[in-house]
Formats: sequence, C-alpha cells, structure tokens
Amino acid sequence: MPSPTMTLSISCPDQRGLVAKLAQFVYRYNGNIIHADHHTDAVAGIFLSRLEWELDGFGIPREQIGATFINYAQREKLFASWQGVRWQLRASDVPYRLAIWVSRQEHCLWDLILRQRAGDLPAEIPLILSNHEQMRPIAEQFGIDFHYIPVTPDTKPMAEAKQLQLLNDYKIDLVILAKYMQVLSPQFLEQFSQVINIHHSFLPAFAGANPYHRAHERGVKIIGATAHYATADLDEGPIIEQAVVPVSHRDTVADLIRKGKDLERIVLARAVRLHLQNRVLVYGNRTAVFT
Amino acid sequence: MPSPTMTLSISCPDQRGLVAKLAQFVYRYNGNIIHADHHTDAVAGIFLSRLEWELDGFGIPREQIGATFINYAQREKLFASWQGVRWQLRASDVPYRLAIWVSRQEHCLWDLILRQRAGDLPAEIPLILSNHEQMRPIAEQFGIDFHYIPVTPDTKPMAEAKQLQLLNDYKIDLVILAKYMQVLSPQFLEQFSQVINIHHSFLPAFAGANPYHRAHERGVKIIGATAHYATADLDEGPIIEQAVVPVSHRDTVADLIRKGKDLERIVLARAVRLHLQNRVLVYGNRTAVFT
Amino acid sequence: MPSPTMTLSISCPDQRGLVAKLAQFVYRYNGNIIHADHHTDAVAGIFLSRLEWELDGFGIPREQIGATFINYAQREKLFASWQGVRWQLRASDVPYRLAIWVSRQEHCLWDLILRQRAGDLPAEIPLILSNHEQMRPIAEQFGIDFHYIPVTPDTKPMAEAKQLQLLNDYKIDLVILAKYMQVLSPQFLEQFSQVINIHHSFLPAFAGANPYHRAHERGVKIIGATAHYATADLDEGPIIEQAVVPVSHRDTVADLIRKGKDLERIVLARAVRLHLQNRVLVYGNRTAVFT
Amino acid sequence: MPSPTMTLSISCPDQRGLVAKLAQFVYRYNGNIIHADHHTDAVAGIFLSRLEWELDGFGIPREQIGATFINYAQREKLFASWQGVRWQLRASDVPYRLAIWVSRQEHCLWDLILRQRAGDLPAEIPLILSNHEQMRPIAEQFGIDFHYIPVTPDTKPMAEAKQLQLLNDYKIDLVILAKYMQVLSPQFLEQFSQVINIHHSFLPAFAGANPYHRAHERGVKIIGATAHYATADLDEGPIIEQAVVPVSHRDTVADLIRKGKDLERIVLARAVRLHLQNRVLVYGNRTAVFT
Repeated sequence: MPSPTMTLSISCPDQRGLVAKLAQFVYRYNGNIIHADHHTDAVAGIFLSRLEWELDGFGIPREQIGATFINYAQREKLFASWQGVRWQLRASDVPYRLAIWVSRQEHCLWDLILRQRAGDLPAEIPLILSNHEQMRPIAEQFGIDFHYIPVTPDTKPMAEAKQLQLLNDYKIDLVILAKYMQVLSPQFLEQFSQVINIHHSFLPAFAGANPYHRAHERGVKIIGATAHYATADLDEGPIIEQAVVPVSHRDTVADLIRKGKDLERIVLARAVRLHLQNRVLVYGNRTAVFT
Repeated sequence: MPSPTMTLSISCPDQRGLVAKLAQFVYRYNGNIIHADHHTDAVAGIFLSRLEWELDGFGIPREQIGATFINYAQREKLFASWQGVRWQLRASDVPYRLAIWVSRQEHCLWDLILRQRAGDLPAEIPLILSNHEQMRPIAEQFGIDFHYIPVTPDTKPMAEAKQLQLLNDYKIDLVILAKYMQVLSPQFLEQFSQVINIHHSFLPAFAGANPYHRAHERGVKIIGATAHYATADLDEGPIIEQAVVPVSHRDTVADLIRKGKDLERIVLARAVRLHLQNRVLVYGNRTAVFT
Repeated sequence: MPSPTMTLSISCPDQRGLVAKLAQFVYRYNGNIIHADHHTDAVAGIFLSRLEWELDGFGIPREQIGATFINYAQREKLFASWQGVRWQLRASDVPYRLAIWVSRQEHCLWDLILRQRAGDLPAEIPLILSNHEQMRPIAEQFGIDFHYIPVTPDTKPMAEAKQLQLLNDYKIDLVILAKYMQVLSPQFLEQFSQVINIHHSFLPAFAGANPYHRAHERGVKIIGATAHYATADLDEGPIIEQAVVPVSHRDTVADLIRKGKDLERIVLARAVRLHLQNRVLVYGNRTAVFT
Repeated sequence: MPSPTMTLSISCPDQRGLVAKLAQFVYRYNGNIIHADHHTDAVAGIFLSRLEWELDGFGIPREQIGATFINYAQREKLFASWQGVRWQLRASDVPYRLAIWVSRQEHCLWDLILRQRAGDLPAEIPLILSNHEQMRPIAEQFGIDFHYIPVTPDTKPMAEAKQLQLLNDYKIDLVILAKYMQVLSPQFLEQFSQVINIHHSFLPAFAGANPYHRAHERGVKIIGATAHYATADLDEGPIIEQAVVPVSHRDTVADLIRKGKDLERIVLARAVRLHLQNRVLVYGNRTAVFT
C-alpha cells in the first residue's frame, strides 16, 4: 500500500523562481516529492505546475496545508498578485465522487463502472443520472443510485435545477457525460463546471450531430473520439484526450459506430483517470496534461 | 524480376455476375490473376473491382486488350449500359510520368525524388514545376527539368495555360502538389484531373490556411495530414490517405510544423504509390483503396 | 434486416482460373456476391479466397450447397487434387457457439459478454468454463452456464476429458481463452482445434510468462497484445491480430498491466469477430485476414 | 531568435529536497527556468532530473557554471556522496558534432542530412564514415568529409583504432549508426560510448539478423523499429524510441523492408533529436525520456 499523497496543481502568470519556491515549500516541511511537472507557455506567459508528495512525514497537518501555503506564497512573493492564480490541493486518499450521466447507450457506462470496480479509477460512483429509464437495471446491479430526470425544451430549466440539487446532495466532484447526448446550459455550467464529455469524433472535425454519418459521407480514412470539458459552446471545450482508428471504404456507418464505441470508451476512461489524478490543468481553452 | 502485369480497374452500377464475368475474361485468355479485389457499395449501388494478372502467357497482345475487353463486355452484357462505367487498363512496365509541383518547402520534393531513385515509386519524374526559383538546384542535381512559372491573381489564367502545355509536352500522367500552396482553377482541373494534393491537417478539421496554427490554438492532442485528389472545392476532394501523430501542450506551433512534415511526407508518398499501382478507385467524392 | 449470406472460405494450391471458377459457381446459381477477396501467396504457391453472397434467391437449397460445390469442383477441375484443399461453408444466420474460458481475471470476459449482448459479436455464448470459481456470478448474471473444472498437473488429462465432453455437449464451435492462463495439451488440440488465445505481449517479444514485468525490465517504449490460434507450442500459433500502446519511464509494472488490459480486450474482441465472420484463413503458421 | 539555454541533466540516488535544491541553484543566480522535468524510479531508488534555463541574465559566466554547481552541491549536501551521481551541463548554442556511420543503405543518411540542413536537428555533421564506398557522393554533395574504412574480422581492431582516431580528430560527440550493420567491440565502446543505433525490428522481437524476413515468416501483423544506445551486447542497449506500422498477409518481405525504411528514418531521427536536446537520461539498462 503506497503512502497517501498530496497534489498541488497551480497555474499562474509566469515569473522567476516559481519552480524553486514551490519545491521549497514542500521540502521545508520535509515532504518527499514523488512527481513534479512544470510547463511554461511562453506565448501566454502562463506557468503551470503539478507537485505530488507523500503525506507520511509531512510537517503540516493536512487540514492546514492550504492556509500554510497561502501564507508561504504571500511571504515569499510567489505571485505578483493572486489575480490569475488558480490552485488546488487534493489528497490521494479522498476519492473523487462521480456522477455518470447517460442516455440510451450503455457501453461507456459499463466501461466506467467496471474500471472503477477493478480499482483502475480511484473514485466512488454514488450516482447515475439519465433522461431515460433504460440504464436503471445496470445501476441497481451495482448498488448505485439511479435518478431519472426527463428533459424537454420546456422542462429543461427545472430539470437542471433538480440535477444541480442531486449533485449537491451526493457531494459530487465530477460529472461524466457518458453519451448523455444533451447540451448543458450556460447557467448550469456556471454553477457546476467540472464536467467531462465524450464526443464521437476527432474534434474539431464533425462537431455537432451525427459525426459518424458525416465521417462516412466525407470518406475519411481515420475516425476519432475526443474527451473534453463541457462548456457553453457545444464541442468547443478544452480537449483532454483524443484517439483514432483507421477505417476503409468497406466500413459502413454501422461499422464506424461499432469501431467508434471502442474509441469512446478508451478516450473517456483515460480522460477521467487523468482528471482524477489531477493531471489536467486548464488554461484558456486548452489543457496541459501532465502524464 | 517479376513478370509485368496488367491491371484492370473498374467501377460501374452493380449487377449480378460481375466478379465471375470479369475473372472469366482474364481466365479465358489464359491470364494468371495475382490480385483480385472487389467491393460493392450497397448504398450507392456501385461495384468496384481491381484485377491484376501476369502478361506473360496472356492470350491477347497488350495493345488489343482494351478493344477485346469492350467486345467481351458487350457480348456478355457485363453492364446494363456503359453509362456510369469507368474503367482503366494499365501495364506495370509502362511507368507513370509524374510532375511534381512545389513552392518554397522542400521536404516532400526530396522525399518523392529519393523514393523514386530507390525504386520504391514505380514512376518517372521528368518535370518539376514551381512558382518560385528556390527548388531549381534540387531538380538540376537529379537531372530533372525545372520550370519556373510565377503566379499572381492577374497572371493565373496564363500561368495555367503554360502549365497545361508543359503537362502535355512532357506526357505527364499525374501531378503531385508537393506543398504547392496554390489552388488550381476549375478550368484547369477540367482539362487535367489527375492531381494529388497533400493537406497539412486531418481533414475535414482545419481545412484552408494555417492548419498548424489553428490546431495549436484549439489545443488538439493529435495532428494529421491528408492526401486527396484536388478538386475545384479547396480541401474537399476524395481522400486517399490520412495519418496522425500525438502532440501535447509542450509542442509549439514550430513543433507541430516539424512533426507535421514527417506526416506530410509519408502520407503523400503512400497516396502516390497507391495511385501508381492503380489501387485507388474514385466514386462520388470517395475512394476505395485496394491495399 | 440484411439478407442472410453464405460464405465460402477456401485455401488450396494455386492454379489458373480459380477466381473465375469460384465466382462462376456462385453466379451460375444466381447468387449475388457482396464480398470477394482473394490472395495468392506466390512463395508458398497457395491460393486463398473468401466469397460471400446473399442466400435470398440463390439457386441451391442451403443444405445442398456443399455437395453441389464438390460436384462443381470436380467437374470443372477446380483443384489438381483435393490434397491440400481446405474449405468451409458457413451461413451468417447460424450463429457460432462460443465457450469462454477464464481464470481469475475478468476484464476480457466482461468485454466479450457485453459485446455479444450489444449485437457486436454475431454468436451465442452458452458456456463459461474456469479453473476457479470467481467468475461464476458474472456467468449467472447473464444466464450463462458456468462449469468449474480445477486443473492440476495430475488431474489435467481428466480435466481435459471433461472439457472436451462439455464442448461436445454444448455444440461449441470456438473456444476463447480469455486470460485462461493454462496451456492446452497437444492431445486436446488434436480433438478440438478452434481455439483463440490472447497473449499479453507483442509476440514474438516476451512469449511465455510475465510479459509485462519483462517489458518493464527491458525498458521498451511500446507494449502490445496478440490474439492467435492456440497450438501445442506455447505462444507460437498463427497470429490473427495485434495492437500496441506507447509507454514511458513513468509507467510502473502496474501501469503496464492496466494499459495492457485495454489492449487485450480490444485485440481479443477483434480477433473473435474476424473469426466469426470467417475472415481468417490459416495456412502454414500464418493467417490471411480478409478485412 | 530564442535566448540560448543551459541544460542540467542529473541522475543520482534519491533523497528529499532534490527538486527544491536544484531549482534553487538556478533561481539563486537569477536563472529563468523554461523546462523542468523530474522522475523518481521508486524501485531503483534513482532520481532523474532535467532543468533548462535561459542563459541571458544568468548570474554565473557559462564557463564557471560547472564548478559553481559542484560547490553548491557540496555546500547544500545535494548528494549523500558523489557515488552514483551522473550529471551533465550543455549549452544549446554549442552544437553537437555528429559522425554518421553507414554501410550500403542510404535512406537514413539522406534523412539525417536533410533534417540537419532544414534546421530540425540542432547539430553539425562533419564526418561520414563507412565500410563501403557507395555513399561517398552523397557526403561530397553536402561538403561532408567521408572516410572509407573497410572492416574484416582480421582488420577490425585496426579499423576501430582508425575510427576512434577520427572521432577524436573531428571532436565528435555522438556517433549515429545509420544502418551501419556492424557490431562495435566492447573495447571500442569503452572508449567512445555515445553511440545510437537503429534496429529494424520492434525489440526485443527479432533481435539479431534479418528481422524483416523473420517477421514475415512469423506472420506478425505489426512491424517496428527501435533506436537504442549501442552496447557490447548486440541489440540489448537502452531503448530510446520505438514505432510500429501495421502489415498484412499481402505484404511480402520486400514490402516489409520498404515500410520499415520509413519507420527506421523516423525512429532514428526522433532518437537523435531527443539526445541532442539532452532529453534522454540512461540509468541501468533503461532510459527516461523527458519529452
């Protein structure tokens, strides 16, 4: 059993000394860094960093690490100001709580549940939410609460209010749109922004509806899938992960859909895992992924 | 030294018996089929076929094969009508004659010339054509004629007339736009349609200008390149071949361009080779590629 | 609902006219060929072919197609002799019956069952067989018979006798070793040869035990998985399908195992699907895969 | 024009504070870190780090950086001892000097020269060395000195003495075996260890001679190429980079060789580029590659 770890993720305007000062913070309190990644986007003037260290033997009680870090940052002038600084502390032994949202396709749902059960997704899945009833038996089989919230254009605001209430009740950290096939409103995303979506194309190609049909019509030789954070602009959010598979003239639309399901499962699972390990840092409409 | 072969490529409205009758044509004259590929696009109702057989021992003199095939097709009612039938006969020992068109980037030009020299592209390259002078030394080094034809919006019609004259003079079968970076007019393509272009993106993503810059801005995790037949609609022609390579937040635009050059060389060379082996059949805006 | 089809797979010593005569057999009885693939291995002198045609409107009752084909082959001198000829007829609406053999890992088992349920594997799964009890609940959940047959060096002959009896009782066409982790004896394979195995390496690298550990130790930058027909020589059977995934110095053995599970599932499922569609022809220790 | 940078690469026994102290060294002298990568191999107890910072404005004259670092390391107790510490300082504006060794195949030689000319390999190529005369014209065309040193079992020691003398005379940093097809003796490698080789298989599969023939015989569905540091054990050195390409039953040995050439060029070029950017750290028989 490895020691639990703390991960500090940070993005801020670049300035000299950040790598040294961040590492110094951990070292001063006797932390043993096991992963350290940094990236500077010279064009944007942004510094991004992810530090992971063992909690065993670390000189600050875990509930005080945040406050201590803020003090340290102010004292050491880590940032010119806190404007534009985004940071997060996350302990590895506090599992993320996921809500999986589905519609009528089950392959991504099965995949995520089975990975979680196998210990490959360090998280809990207390909640499945759908605009259809079909997936209820799968949820029940694994003892996961299932909530059916139908959505029509008229009821959408009320549905989203219910959804937000459930996310709050279940203390959800991350929503996974596992082929949910519905757009979330800007209002929803303002209140809950941690949402990963899987799009069944190699974005930005074939954004929007029916990507496999359009890929077939265009005669492409490769299809793809894209996991990204949901934003108010459909299929325009920061991309986390993409993968592709070759296709040929022999593949019908049904073949593309079938081949695509493997891509969707793998790309979504990789993106979720990266998020759960706090390896994805968003800046602008982009991500740095510290693999 | 393998025996020279004849390849019959055909696309036509589907009907029963085509595989049998086409193969029978070869067998009746004692031809030894070494490759036979067929595909039916059930949705479009199109039959596509590629038959390759050894010329040694074949019972029809090669200059009469076309006429004999037409007679056979009529007698055996191979087609309901010749409407919609496209067919081609091509002997493997009559090399294609290529014209490579370039602008100011040299990587695809070097690549094609070196592959041809190494015997990996069964073709002759008598002509290089450019709207700049920079590539002339490369052409001269390999004893290839180089023609400089500058193109401005005003002179484009005259330039295209010169280009067409050269294609005719040099008996060119296939034009390769090896980073030529200029659009051909519909009038040009009506008179010479055998043109392969390389686009430096994973089409249909980032069609048009500056794909690497736009890929970088969008934050994609994979970039690609696409070889396609040129059509009057920019970047909309039938796709022959695509390939991709992973990128990350660490890659600058310059890195994408550098990584993309490897893709462009390989994708273009593969597409050209497939065309030279008569493995690419166009139907509608799509291709069947018999690999 | 597409029409059911008949598929004729054949491998035989090469001679002229085979493509024509095989297609002629289908056409003579008014069959509509929808796929036709041929390959000649010039070095081995072997001809391989796969013809698929619609049964609707075909002029031979399906139970007589085999006998009619034999007559036709003899009359038309399709083969110099029947020595070295291997052929098979298979209708698409007679599903294969699969037995999945497992040990203590469940990911491939789940994967195959879920694909079959989703309609992506055209087959029935009446039987799961294991040398451990752990997977019984999964079998029961889907109403699949589960047989527990422990195997020790001493009891192996008796265990294999039981296994063969079960394959016979359940009319099994194809055994899938879905991480069964046991070698089958030559005696077993003589009596039942249709066995697909998944090996968790990019064969022939790391044949044998603990491939992920050895891959980690060797410091490779890519790992793979291989689906092959089981033979008496461990990990030496004809390869059907392979796939790979990049790894880095950051990946521990546990990471390789986790990444490998995705490969194993996909490669095994692809190989099984190809087999079920009669697209895999074995000759010598190799396969031709008509995709 | 970006500022020149200094890169410090280091591998040493792991202990607390290394990230902080190394970064502190750069920061104390006002260095602006633009890349920082660290990796701890917990099993081996090894810490690996690569720090790159801008030389403009750095507070130590470049010729004193090494001595200052040693002082700093001693004062700050960076290492328990210098036992097991390997470190290197390298400025980005002092180009590596490469010797390319070839035999009778030219594709990798062309590729490396053209990349260097295009500015994609930050290095100089003053020397080409071969056991055959064929490549001399290519060397001369680009104004590169070419030395012909034939090698027979009898003359090998003398040949290696000459080779070492040339490496010394030309102040070579890195030897690239670009299809040199000869093994270097342990004595040679003791005196000059910076040697990258390209092997035309997916190691450890098909180590040794004729990998493409053996891959064809085994019927694999994917072939690969591997760039690694040369060691006295043939094809057993630390792997830097690998890549693969799918093949099928239609591919002859000649096709594998042709497809493999693209792999070899790309894999070798990537490995060389990574080495030139000091991104490859060797430890044990493995590499950490900080991409």
